[in-house]
Amino acid sequence: MRKFFLLVLGAMLALNAVAQENILAGSAIKSPVVNADKSVTFLLRAPKAREVKMVGDFGPRHFIDAPFGHMEVVLPIEMKEEHGLWTFTTAPMPSDIYTYHFEVDGQKMLDPSNVRQMRDGASYENIFLVRDDNPESMGNLCDVQDVPHGTISKVWYDSPTLGMQRRLTVYTPAGYETTKTKYPVLYLLHGGGGDEEAWSDLGRLSQILDNLIALGKAKPMIVVMPNNNMAEPAAPNVLFKEPAKGKPGELIASGRATVDEAFPDVVNFTESHYRVIKDKQHRAMAGLSMGGEYTFATSRRFPDYFDYIGIFSPALFWGNGGKTKVTDDQLDLCKKQLATLFKKQPKLYFLAIGTTDFLYEADMQWKAELLDKPGYPVQYHESEGGHTWRNWRNYLSIFLPQIFK
Amino acid sequence: MRKFFLLVLGAMLALNAVAQENILAGSAIKSPVVNADKSVTFLLRAPKAREVKMVGDFGPRHFIDAPFGHMEVVLPIEMKEEHGLWTFTTAPMPSDIYTYHFEVDGQKMLDPSNVRQMRDGASYENIFLVRDDNPESMGNLCDVQDVPHGTISKVWYDSPTLGMQRRLTVYTPAGYETTKTKYPVLYLLHGGGGDEEAWSDLGRLSQILDNLIALGKAKPMIVVMPNNNMAEPAAPNVLFKEPAKGKPGELIASGRATVDEAFPDVVNFTESHYRVIKDKQHRAMAGLSMGGEYTFATSRRFPDYFDYIGIFSPALFWGNGGKTKVTDDQLDLCKKQLATLFKKQPKLYFLAIGTTDFLYEADMQWKAELLDKPGYPVQYHESEGGHTWRNWRNYLSIFLPQIFK
Repeated sequence: MRKFFLLVLGAMLALNAVAQENILAGSAIKSPVVNADKSVTFLLRAPKAREVKMVGDFGPRHFIDAPFGHMEVVLPIEMKEEHGLWTFTTAPMPSDIYTYHFEVDGQKMLDPSNVRQMRDGASYENIFLVRDDNPESMGNLCDVQDVPHGTISKVWYDSPTLGMQRRLTVYTPAGYETTKTKYPVLYLLHGGGGDEEAWSDLGRLSQILDNLIALGKAKPMIVVMPNNNMAEPAAPNVLFKEPAKGKPGELIASGRATVDEAFPDVVNFTESHYRVIKDKQHRAMAGLSMGGEYTFATSRRFPDYFDYIGIFSPALFWGNGGKTKVTDDQLDLCKKQLATLFKKQPKLYFLAIGTTDFLYEADMQWKAELLDKPGYPVQYHESEGGHTWRNWRNYLSIFLPQIFK
Repeated sequence: MRKFFLLVLGAMLALNAVAQENILAGSAIKSPVVNADKSVTFLLRAPKAREVKMVGDFGPRHFIDAPFGHMEVVLPIEMKEEHGLWTFTTAPMPSDIYTYHFEVDGQKMLDPSNVRQMRDGASYENIFLVRDDNPESMGNLCDVQDVPHGTISKVWYDSPTLGMQRRLTVYTPAGYETTKTKYPVLYLLHGGGGDEEAWSDLGRLSQILDNLIALGKAKPMIVVMPNNNMAEPAAPNVLFKEPAKGKPGELIASGRATVDEAFPDVVNFTESHYRVIKDKQHRAMAGLSMGGEYTFATSRRFPDYFDYIGIFSPALFWGNGGKTKVTDDQLDLCKKQLATLFKKQPKLYFLAIGTTDFLYEADMQWKAELLDKPGYPVQYHESEGGHTWRNWRNYLSIFLPQIFK
């Protein structure tokens, strides 16, 4: 009988060579490698390829002219080949999370040596992390540290406004299950093409917040991350049914109601299913890009809801019911709603954008017209870079320490 | 001012053509397409490619000789090219979830037109679903149906035995948050190369269980899915730190303790953090492959823990402390532990395997020697196919209706 145990063990070892299924697939190459000087080396074995490029969110960029100003485009980097192994090494890089993929003879390919991937809407990218010695650097904030960890839950809620069950992601802080404490709530919205998994996965919400809480920089809070594609009940990797409109992972902005119109369903669910403090001082809302616009729209539609409002790289009036024009009536309503909102003195109205964001010019004019001209107290943060998750994680890390204080 | 709103909308629309970031990446091609006759067509635009193949878990297989018997290997399928578009259409397929990827000039590539991917250990595969009219077919059980949905949570627990915080996945049934009901618990283990995300993602645990509960076929229960790679606190896409041993996504079997030795930490955490019924009649354990071996080992190490035991395609004695030989003493201990276990009359001891599994022959000899010879009451289920997630989802759907009745 022992002979068979040996044979089974032999079979397990043989799996790496001839896998019956893909449970042990992998690669002998390690890529990427973060070198001692924080430069990063990428490797791909592709002996049949004629041309291999790497496209990374840290790569060189150039600007193209567009009717609305300039637009940044990432340039692919040519990799060097020797004996079928293609390589490229970057300059030293600051501590952060970065994304990349390869292009092999014109076809996008993810790095077979890097198990770490993130879905960004309908697209997948490899990710890697560069650390340094500063516990508050973005790389270290985004990493799992030896601190108490909150829980990430994928929950279904009923939306009477939209007439469907929908999925959302909830972060509950460490201690939620074992205490009776009531917590404040941040509602955090993804951008166009994203869904309820964007902030917890690419946005590293739970790591950033775990670490800020452990550092004493942020208050323990609940974070609710809904799906803002109103025709899509859940992220496409969970839901096989095609959405009522559009393709899975695409912008799906219109349905029976807009995000701001249906938002009370999210708040009602949260406040009836979680131990939360149900007042304006203990509610915050933030969002990126399309989610920045919906934060803008929702916070002025419901001026008694939120005392802390964070608008990251907003795509203004994106949620305008699919219409391509903002009418005078809509603008008037917007201005009136903003007047009411600011009369109620929210504790923080935070706006952040990168100087090379393709929305920068439009957002600056919008800020001047709708916020600066009436003299509303806006905390404005300007960063380098464009419409990127690196910026949004950074804006989040600036916003979180300022809420519920 | 309105001009700028129009320009921003123009920018949003232009994003599909020139994406500054990848938030709207996608493809104009739809692939795969499930045709009316349940055949499936795959499409890939690759004008520069010389050869494109598709490798699917539904593809033709052949057998190779190996010392331990025969081993099944999936054969790649050649795709046909016309004007740079490569296509292949299958025969009609039964309702189920299937996985596949492309090989372009020898390089593995995922389908850029299919947003749905699943990580299987260190490997990624595209997935698609074929439906039929039978609500109990595997495809329909694995799909999100309009029924009450449980919650999937990613939770960190303390393992004093391993000296680290570790991550696990918990399914709580619909109603858990709004009632005071106490539930039975199934502990469900992944296989070699997997982690705490395997059963909830590829295994479709929450969909299968939501649907079986709604059909009246399974009792509402909590399901706890730990990470059995003892040197790895969490799945590699969450944890950037390299595990103490091996590479992320690899088999990492040994550490300070084996899965069965450290298992009380998982039970203690579950019973102190969730509303569960804490007795043998309300605990079950099941696992696949390496997790089948750990279910085998844990259930006989703790004969008072579980009344329901499910062993799927087990890799026997895999967890033998990294040793390549089972000693007479270990075999004697195993037999004594099994005698004690069966004396306590567990309500169900379920064993399932596919006839073309590379472990089939060894498992049959093991079953004869350790279970049949002493006359233990084992419910044995034999299926077609091999060491596949299709089999494991199917075994789960057979096991779940039989527990906690």
